[in-house]
Amino acid sequence: MEQLHSHDWKVEAHFVGRSLDKHGVLIDSGAAQDALRRVLAELDGRDLTDARELDGTNPSAENLACWVFARLRDRLKGRAELARVRVWESPGFAAAYQETQE
Amino acid sequence: MEQLHSHDWKVEAHFVGRSLDKHGVLIDSGAAQDALRRVLAELDGRDLTDARELDGTNPSAENLACWVFARLRDRLKGRAELARVRVWESPGFAAAYQETQE
Amino acid sequence: MEQLHSHDWKVEAHFVGRSLDKHGVLIDSGAAQDALRRVLAELDGRDLTDARELDGTNPSAENLACWVFARLRDRLKGRAELARVRVWESPGFAAAYQETQE
Repeated sequence: MEQLHSHDWKVEAHFVGRSLDKHGVLIDSGAAQDALRRVLAELDGRDLTDARELDGTNPSAENLACWVFARLRDRLKGRAELARVRVWESPGFAAAYQETQE
Repeated sequence: MEQLHSHDWKVEAHFVGRSLDKHGVLIDSGAAQDALRRVLAELDGRDLTDARELDGTNPSAENLACWVFARLRDRLKGRAELARVRVWESPGFAAAYQETQE
Repeated sequence: MEQLHSHDWKVEAHFVGRSLDKHGVLIDSGAAQDALRRVLAELDGRDLTDARELDGTNPSAENLACWVFARLRDRLKGRAELARVRVWESPGFAAAYQETQE
Protein backbone atom coordinates (compact mmCIF):
# COMPACT_ATOMS: atom_id res chain seq x y z
CA MET A 1 0.00 0.00 0.00
CA GLU A 2 1.35 3.32 -0.97
CA GLN A 3 0.16 6.86 -0.77
CA LEU A 4 -0.20 8.67 -4.06
CA HIS A 5 0.73 12.42 -4.12
CA SER A 6 -1.66 15.17 -3.14
CA HIS A 7 -4.79 13.07 -3.08
CA ASP A 8 -5.04 10.68 -0.23
CA TRP A 9 -5.18 7.75 -2.59
CA LYS A 10 -4.06 4.30 -1.60
CA VAL A 11 -2.85 1.64 -3.99
CA GLU A 12 -3.07 -2.09 -3.28
CA ALA A 13 -1.30 -4.78 -5.27
CA HIS A 14 -2.46 -8.42 -5.05
CA PHE A 15 -0.24 -11.29 -6.07
CA VAL A 16 -1.18 -14.93 -6.54
CA GLY A 17 0.80 -18.13 -6.78
CA ARG A 18 0.58 -21.85 -6.19
CA SER A 19 3.72 -22.18 -4.11
CA LEU A 20 5.93 -20.27 -1.70
CA ASP A 21 9.68 -19.78 -1.66
CA LYS A 22 11.97 -21.36 0.95
CA HIS A 23 11.16 -18.51 3.34
CA GLY A 24 7.47 -19.31 3.09
CA VAL A 25 6.59 -16.16 1.22
CA LEU A 26 4.95 -15.63 -2.15
CA ILE A 27 6.90 -12.49 -2.96
CA ASP A 28 9.31 -10.48 -0.83
CA SER A 29 7.10 -7.73 0.54
CA GLY A 30 9.98 -5.25 0.64
CA ALA A 31 10.72 -5.83 -3.04
CA ALA A 32 7.04 -5.53 -3.92
CA GLN A 33 6.66 -2.30 -1.96
CA ASP A 34 9.81 -0.90 -3.49
CA ALA A 35 8.60 -1.70 -7.01
CA LEU A 36 5.22 -0.13 -6.29
CA ARG A 37 6.91 2.94 -4.84
CA ARG A 38 8.99 3.37 -7.99
CA VAL A 39 5.96 3.06 -10.22
CA LEU A 40 4.04 5.64 -8.22
CA ALA A 41 7.07 7.95 -8.11
CA GLU A 42 6.60 8.51 -11.85
CA LEU A 43 3.38 10.32 -11.02
CA ASP A 44 4.47 11.92 -7.78
CA GLY A 45 3.80 15.60 -7.49
CA ARG A 46 2.35 15.85 -11.00
CA ASP A 47 -0.97 17.18 -12.00
CA LEU A 48 -2.51 13.91 -13.06
CA THR A 49 -4.92 15.59 -15.43
CA ASP A 50 -1.87 16.69 -17.40
CA ALA A 51 0.56 13.82 -16.85
CA ARG A 52 2.08 12.63 -20.11
CA GLU A 53 2.49 9.25 -18.43
CA LEU A 54 -1.24 8.71 -18.55
CA ASP A 55 -1.33 9.40 -22.29
CA GLY A 56 -3.97 12.05 -21.93
CA THR A 57 -6.52 9.70 -20.44
CA ASN A 58 -8.64 10.95 -17.61
CA PRO A 59 -6.91 10.06 -14.31
CA SER A 60 -9.86 8.10 -12.97
CA ALA A 61 -9.18 5.49 -10.33
CA GLU A 62 -9.95 2.90 -13.05
CA ASN A 63 -7.33 4.29 -15.45
CA LEU A 64 -4.77 4.67 -12.69
CA ALA A 65 -5.32 1.08 -11.56
CA CYS A 66 -4.77 -0.11 -15.13
CA TRP A 67 -1.68 2.07 -15.58
CA VAL A 68 -0.12 0.92 -12.29
CA PHE A 69 -0.94 -2.72 -13.08
CA ALA A 70 0.95 -2.68 -16.38
CA ARG A 71 4.05 -0.97 -14.96
CA LEU A 72 4.18 -2.97 -11.76
CA ARG A 73 3.83 -6.24 -13.64
CA ASP A 74 6.76 -5.24 -15.86
CA ARG A 75 8.93 -4.43 -12.85
CA LEU A 76 8.17 -7.68 -11.08
CA LYS A 77 8.23 -9.93 -14.11
CA GLY A 78 9.25 -13.46 -13.17
CA ARG A 79 8.88 -12.90 -9.42
CA ALA A 80 5.18 -13.48 -8.77
CA GLU A 81 1.98 -13.18 -10.72
CA LEU A 82 0.32 -9.81 -10.24
CA ALA A 83 -3.38 -10.55 -9.97
CA ARG A 84 -4.93 -7.16 -9.33
CA VAL A 85 -4.23 -3.51 -8.57
CA ARG A 86 -6.80 -1.57 -6.58
CA VAL A 87 -6.77 2.19 -6.24
CA TRP A 88 -8.65 3.76 -3.33
CA GLU A 89 -9.72 7.27 -4.26
CA SER A 90 -11.24 7.75 -0.80
CA PRO A 91 -12.03 5.40 2.09
CA GLY A 92 -15.40 4.74 0.46
CA PHE A 93 -14.47 4.37 -3.21
CA ALA A 94 -12.03 2.12 -5.01
CA ALA A 95 -11.45 0.80 -8.52
CA ALA A 96 -9.54 -2.36 -9.33
CA TYR A 97 -7.93 -3.64 -12.50
CA GLN A 98 -7.26 -7.31 -13.21
CA GLU A 99 -6.72 -9.30 -16.36
CA THR A 100 -7.82 -12.73 -15.29
CA GLN A 101 -11.41 -13.59 -14.59
CA GLU A 102 -12.10 -13.33 -10.89
CA MET B 1 -20.55 2.81 0.98
CA GLU B 2 -23.55 3.85 2.91
CA GLN B 3 -24.59 3.81 6.53
CA LEU B 4 -27.69 1.83 7.32
CA HIS B 5 -30.03 3.19 10.06
CA SER B 6 -29.46 2.65 13.76
CA HIS B 7 -26.88 -0.07 13.42
CA ASP B 8 -23.52 1.05 12.25
CA TRP B 9 -23.76 -1.12 9.18
CA LYS B 10 -21.89 -0.37 6.00
CA VAL B 11 -22.91 -1.52 2.56
CA GLU B 12 -20.46 -2.02 -0.31
CA ALA B 13 -21.44 -2.50 -3.94
CA HIS B 14 -18.94 -3.98 -6.42
CA PHE B 15 -19.34 -3.57 -10.15
CA VAL B 16 -17.46 -5.32 -12.92
CA GLY B 17 -17.00 -4.67 -16.60
CA ARG B 18 -14.64 -5.23 -19.49
CA SER B 19 -14.44 -1.64 -20.67
CA LEU B 20 -14.69 1.93 -19.43
CA ASP B 21 -16.69 4.86 -20.73
CA LYS B 22 -15.10 7.90 -22.42
CA HIS B 23 -14.38 9.38 -18.99
CA GLY B 24 -12.41 6.30 -18.04
CA VAL B 25 -14.90 5.11 -15.47
CA LEU B 26 -16.85 1.88 -15.17
CA ILE B 27 -19.90 3.49 -13.62
CA ASP B 28 -20.46 7.05 -12.46
CA SER B 29 -19.77 6.84 -8.74
CA GLY B 30 -22.27 9.57 -7.95
CA ALA B 31 -25.03 7.70 -9.76
CA ALA B 32 -24.06 4.45 -8.04
CA GLN B 33 -24.04 6.07 -4.61
CA ASP B 34 -27.33 7.75 -5.29
CA ALA B 35 -28.93 4.47 -6.34
CA LEU B 36 -27.57 2.71 -3.27
CA ARG B 37 -28.82 5.53 -1.05
CA ARG B 38 -32.32 5.20 -2.50
CA VAL B 39 -32.35 1.46 -1.97
CA LEU B 40 -31.24 1.81 1.64
CA ALA B 41 -33.73 4.63 2.22
CA GLU B 42 -36.50 2.06 1.91
CA LEU B 43 -35.25 0.53 5.15
CA ASP B 44 -34.17 3.71 6.87
CA GLY B 45 -35.49 4.17 10.37
CA ARG B 46 -37.46 0.94 10.30
CA ASP B 47 -37.28 -1.89 12.69
CA LEU B 48 -35.72 -4.41 10.35
CA THR B 49 -37.14 -7.37 12.24
CA ASP B 50 -40.53 -6.09 11.23
CA ALA B 51 -39.89 -4.53 7.83
CA ARG B 52 -42.41 -5.66 5.26
CA GLU B 53 -39.72 -5.03 2.67
CA LEU B 54 -37.75 -8.00 3.89
CA ASP B 55 -40.80 -10.28 3.52
CA GLY B 56 -40.57 -11.46 7.08
CA THR B 57 -37.11 -12.94 6.65
CA ASN B 58 -34.64 -12.49 9.46
CA PRO B 59 -32.63 -9.29 8.81
CA SER B 60 -29.30 -11.07 8.85
CA ALA B 61 -26.40 -9.44 7.03
CA GLU B 62 -26.75 -12.26 4.47
CA ASN B 63 -30.43 -11.52 3.80
CA LEU B 64 -29.83 -7.79 3.67
CA ALA B 65 -26.99 -8.24 1.19
CA CYS B 66 -29.27 -10.32 -1.03
CA TRP B 67 -32.13 -7.83 -0.72
CA VAL B 68 -29.92 -4.84 -1.53
CA PHE B 69 -28.32 -6.72 -4.44
CA ALA B 70 -31.66 -7.36 -6.17
CA ARG B 71 -32.93 -3.79 -5.76
CA LEU B 72 -29.67 -2.11 -6.66
CA ARG B 73 -29.28 -4.23 -9.78
CA ASP B 74 -32.79 -3.22 -10.86
CA ARG B 75 -32.02 0.47 -10.37
CA LEU B 76 -28.77 0.33 -12.30
CA LYS B 77 -29.92 -1.99 -15.06
CA GLY B 78 -28.00 -1.37 -18.25
CA ARG B 79 -25.34 0.81 -16.60
CA ALA B 80 -22.82 -1.67 -15.22
CA GLU B 81 -22.87 -5.23 -14.01
CA LEU B 82 -23.37 -5.46 -10.27
CA ALA B 83 -21.05 -8.21 -9.11
CA ARG B 84 -21.50 -8.26 -5.37
CA VAL B 85 -23.06 -6.50 -2.39
CA ARG B 86 -21.33 -6.79 0.96
CA VAL B 87 -22.95 -5.76 4.24
CA TRP B 88 -20.71 -5.01 7.21
CA GLU B 89 -22.59 -5.67 10.41
CA SER B 90 -19.58 -4.54 12.44
CA PRO B 91 -15.94 -3.80 11.58
CA GLY B 92 -15.19 -7.48 12.16
CA PHE B 93 -18.15 -9.16 10.44
CA ALA B 94 -19.51 -8.93 6.91
CA ALA B 95 -21.71 -10.97 4.60
CA ALA B 96 -21.66 -10.71 0.82
CA TYR B 97 -24.11 -11.77 -1.85
CA GLN B 98 -23.16 -12.48 -5.45
CA GLU B 99 -24.74 -14.47 -8.24
CA THR B 100 -21.75 -15.36 -10.32
CA GLN B 101 -19.09 -17.79 -9.21
CA GLU B 102 -16.20 -15.94 -7.64
CA MET C 1 -11.49 -11.47 13.07
CA GLU C 2 -9.17 -12.28 15.87
CA GLN C 3 -6.04 -10.79 17.29
CA LEU C 4 -3.01 -13.02 17.30
CA HIS C 5 -0.62 -12.76 20.32
CA SER C 6 2.16 -10.21 20.55
CA HIS C 7 2.03 -9.06 16.96
CA ASP C 8 -0.95 -7.01 16.02
CA TRP C 9 -2.01 -9.53 13.43
CA LYS C 10 -5.57 -9.96 12.33
CA VAL C 11 -7.05 -13.12 10.90
CA GLU C 12 -10.06 -13.19 8.57
CA ALA C 13 -12.01 -16.29 7.64
CA HIS C 14 -14.26 -16.29 4.55
CA PHE C 15 -17.01 -18.85 4.09
CA VAL C 16 -19.07 -19.53 0.99
CA GLY C 17 -22.29 -21.37 0.33
CA ARG C 18 -25.25 -21.54 -2.00
CA SER C 19 -27.95 -21.37 0.64
CA LEU C 20 -28.68 -20.03 4.10
CA ASP C 21 -30.12 -21.75 7.15
CA LYS C 22 -33.59 -20.98 8.55
CA HIS C 23 -32.16 -17.97 10.40
CA GLY C 24 -30.89 -16.54 7.12
CA VAL C 25 -27.26 -17.04 7.96
CA LEU C 26 -24.53 -18.98 6.20
CA ILE C 27 -22.74 -19.97 9.38
CA ASP C 28 -23.36 -18.94 12.95
CA SER C 29 -20.87 -16.12 13.45
CA GLY C 30 -20.45 -16.94 17.14
CA ALA C 31 -19.55 -20.54 16.33
CA ALA C 32 -17.17 -19.41 13.60
CA GLN C 33 -15.47 -16.90 15.88
CA ASP C 34 -15.21 -19.46 18.64
CA ALA C 35 -13.61 -21.99 16.31
CA LEU C 36 -11.15 -19.40 15.04
CA ARG C 37 -10.33 -18.36 18.59
CA ARG C 38 -9.56 -21.97 19.53
CA VAL C 39 -7.32 -22.42 16.52
CA LEU C 40 -5.39 -19.25 17.29
CA ALA C 41 -5.16 -20.17 20.98
CA GLU C 42 -2.80 -22.98 19.99
CA LEU C 43 -0.29 -20.33 19.01
CA ASP C 44 -1.11 -17.80 21.69
CA GLY C 45 1.84 -16.49 23.61
CA ARG C 46 4.32 -18.69 21.77
CA ASP C 47 7.37 -17.62 19.93
CA LEU C 48 6.15 -18.43 16.45
CA THR C 49 9.66 -18.91 15.11
CA ASP C 50 9.93 -21.83 17.49
CA ALA C 51 6.37 -23.16 17.61
CA ARG C 52 6.25 -26.90 17.10
CA GLU C 53 2.75 -26.38 15.71
CA LEU C 54 4.19 -24.75 12.62
CA ASP C 55 6.48 -27.73 11.99
CA GLY C 56 9.55 -25.57 11.82
CA THR C 57 8.31 -23.54 8.87
CA ASN C 58 8.97 -19.82 8.88
CA PRO C 59 5.96 -18.07 10.49
CA SER C 60 5.27 -15.91 7.46
CA ALA C 61 1.78 -14.55 7.00
CA GLU C 62 1.46 -17.00 4.10
CA ASN C 63 2.35 -20.03 6.23
CA LEU C 64 0.14 -18.89 9.08
CA ALA C 65 -2.80 -18.41 6.71
CA CYS C 66 -2.31 -21.95 5.40
CA TRP C 67 -1.94 -23.39 8.91
CA VAL C 68 -5.06 -21.62 10.20
CA PHE C 69 -7.02 -22.65 7.10
CA ALA C 70 -6.38 -26.35 7.61
CA ARG C 71 -7.22 -26.32 11.32
CA LEU C 72 -10.27 -24.09 11.02
CA ARG C 73 -11.68 -26.22 8.20
CA ASP C 74 -11.31 -29.30 10.35
CA ARG C 75 -13.11 -27.67 13.26
CA LEU C 76 -16.01 -26.47 11.13
CA LYS C 77 -16.34 -29.55 8.94
CA GLY C 78 -19.90 -29.96 7.73
CA ARG C 79 -21.02 -26.50 8.81
CA ALA C 80 -19.99 -24.24 5.92
CA GLU C 81 -17.34 -24.26 3.25
CA LEU C 82 -14.25 -22.33 4.32
CA ALA C 83 -13.16 -20.42 1.22
CA ARG C 84 -10.18 -18.43 2.41
CA VAL C 85 -8.14 -17.38 5.41
CA ARG C 86 -6.37 -14.04 5.29
CA VAL C 87 -3.73 -12.96 7.79
CA TRP C 88 -3.00 -9.25 8.18
CA GLU C 89 0.57 -8.78 9.36
CA SER C 90 0.05 -5.02 9.48
CA PRO C 91 -2.68 -2.69 8.20
CA GLY C 92 -0.80 -2.54 4.89
CA PHE C 93 0.18 -6.16 4.37
CA ALA C 94 -1.87 -9.36 4.24
CA ALA C 95 -1.49 -12.88 2.90
CA ALA C 96 -4.39 -15.17 2.07
CA TYR C 97 -4.66 -18.90 1.60
CA GLN C 98 -7.40 -20.59 -0.42
CA GLU C 99 -7.68 -23.94 -2.12
CA THR C 100 -10.19 -23.20 -4.81
CA GLN C 101 -9.41 -21.02 -7.80
CA GLU C 102 -10.56 -17.49 -7.14
